[in-house]
Amino acid sequence: MAQLDNLRIVLASRPAGRPRPGDFRLEHAAVPTAAEGQVLLRILYLSLDPYMRGRMSEAKSYAAPVAIGQVMEGGTVAEVLESRHPSFKPGDIVLSHSGWQSHAVADGAHLRKLDPAAAPITTALGVLGMPGFTAYAGLLTIGQPKAGETVVVAAASGPVGSAVGQIARIKGARAVGIAGGETKCAFVRETFGFDAVIDHRAPDFAEKLAAACPQGIDVYFENVGGKVWDAVFPLLNTFARIPVCGLVAQYNSTGDFAGPDQLPVVMRQVLTKSLTIRGFIQREFVAQRPAFEQEMARWITDGALKYKEDIVAGLDRAPEAFIGLLEGKNFGKLIVKV
Amino acid sequence: MAQLDNLRIVLASRPAGRPRPGDFRLEHAAVPTAAEGQVLLRILYLSLDPYMRGRMSEAKSYAAPVAIGQVMEGGTVAEVLESRHPSFKPGDIVLSHSGWQSHAVADGAHLRKLDPAAAPITTALGVLGMPGFTAYAGLLTIGQPKAGETVVVAAASGPVGSAVGQIARIKGARAVGIAGGETKCAFVRETFGFDAVIDHRAPDFAEKLAAACPQGIDVYFENVGGKVWDAVFPLLNTFARIPVCGLVAQYNSTGDFAGPDQLPVVMRQVLTKSLTIRGFIQREFVAQRPAFEQEMARWITDGALKYKEDIVAGLDRAPEAFIGLLEGKNFGKLIVKV
Repeated sequence: MAQLDNLRIVLASRPAGRPRPGDFRLEHAAVPTAAEGQVLLRILYLSLDPYMRGRMSEAKSYAAPVAIGQVMEGGTVAEVLESRHPSFKPGDIVLSHSGWQSHAVADGAHLRKLDPAAAPITTALGVLGMPGFTAYAGLLTIGQPKAGETVVVAAASGPVGSAVGQIARIKGARAVGIAGGETKCAFVRETFGFDAVIDHRAPDFAEKLAAACPQGIDVYFENVGGKVWDAVFPLLNTFARIPVCGLVAQYNSTGDFAGPDQLPVVMRQVLTKSLTIRGFIQREFVAQRPAFEQEMARWITDGALKYKEDIVAGLDRAPEAFIGLLEGKNFGKLIVKV
Repeated sequence: MAQLDNLRIVLASRPAGRPRPGDFRLEHAAVPTAAEGQVLLRILYLSLDPYMRGRMSEAKSYAAPVAIGQVMEGGTVAEVLESRHPSFKPGDIVLSHSGWQSHAVADGAHLRKLDPAAAPITTALGVLGMPGFTAYAGLLTIGQPKAGETVVVAAASGPVGSAVGQIARIKGARAVGIAGGETKCAFVRETFGFDAVIDHRAPDFAEKLAAACPQGIDVYFENVGGKVWDAVFPLLNTFARIPVCGLVAQYNSTGDFAGPDQLPVVMRQVLTKSLTIRGFIQREFVAQRPAFEQEMARWITDGALKYKEDIVAGLDRAPEAFIGLLEGKNFGKLIVKV
């Protein structure tokens, strides 16, 4: 298969702050060959997610950074071209973690076969995949919303936020979303059915959020940090739970953060309001994955839960799309059609 | 009974920062009269605890502040002088919450009878009372130490810290204590049996703490904040749990805290290390109180758990003793013999 061209995007340099297009490099490489137990894949769709910003930095995190010159990491949906694994045959559609490239080999043991008749295959990267499971596991395990409580989530038009709010409503809680711009806000209100939506670009954003949460906030699903946190923090109720899933607003920050130091103020409220702040990554809840897949599929079939995808055509556009994602330019789950 | 003199200490003014003796006022008042269902008490022992600093401020907390001119709040052990409640008779010893005074009336329903033959009555204010239960409930419910894990606690010679470390050891974990000065450190090591003790006054305190925790920290029972937090924070392991019980180091602070802002740094670690930070007050775990009383009494009888009391004679010395408590001048559970 060496005549085929593997198009791939590698990390060219570690960004200081906001990634620039030059931090990525498009390369042509030979298509690899599948060894025994492996399959050769043609990547159909690549998922772009905020966590990838962490992999571009050298700082210690829950996963090793991508090395300079290495293919950018990422979840993918792919078609099997050649199989040397008994469970797969050419034409099968699989979920893999093959990164930003057009072709890859993978161990059969690391793949999950998808049924294109059951759901659109892109949903394996979104509502039925990692982002959907992040919302489900973080909200239900840490957030534990109860009927009548108020759940707040930012990036509410995105794949995690939209699922958080809709699952909160399924559990009988009030969902208050935060999104950027009137188009996204209208979609969150009308299609995702949140009880209230606030545009974080509004000059009186904090006041509007307070008005939308007259009973305070019981669960804040943290995926952005920054000024959303500042507005949410005074509204937290006693025993509020804060699953921390992401901090997109600070991923591009460098150096020290300007004072005053907010930590003692936050810790005082943690103490006097018996707050729970709990960071997580979805894979620690792997035991709940089967329940998630079953419930989420049912909610989608029933129409109780909607999703939105934002599909960009062409692997070469992945860097630009990813940079836009960190700035909230996507509208729905961002996926590259490779 | 109006001929008797009720000696009491009231809040004279709200402290700005460190409380001063002038923030308290010693008064003489008439001894109150018990109504139907009440008892008249002579206070024998008054507990002094760091949480009282919060009650002196107007800031919102989990309990209402003490009003200016009102008797300072506090747990007490008292003798029944007169009873108009069927469950109590003169001479009974009870646990009450009668505050900084020599006499009080209390509803019989709010009292708990103590058995002076079962344990020294002062232990109802310490190891068998609120501080002991704070340690037990916070450590076991939130901290959840497992065998072989490392548990760190400051104020390790105090009533909460000493119980935290000893319960951690009973559960098979390593206990690393922090205390101020060689006398306290030696006591924590030799009498309380901690695996390691660090003097927070040492110039290389942070390095010593790191050396005492070669496997990192799995549970940090937070009762001080400040520089102890700074030293603990980089040592926290993935999935570390941080029960937040107190922040003595910042209780006397006023105004903004100097930058840089540590909050984004802390939140990043919460995210990437899946940390749990959970504030609490012992009374939210009231369902565990019977188990606590049974287990703790057994541990004391068995010699598995030791305690130390620091008893000051004379109600008039309570303000000075309390001010010293906030600076770590006590050595063991601070109690005033009224």
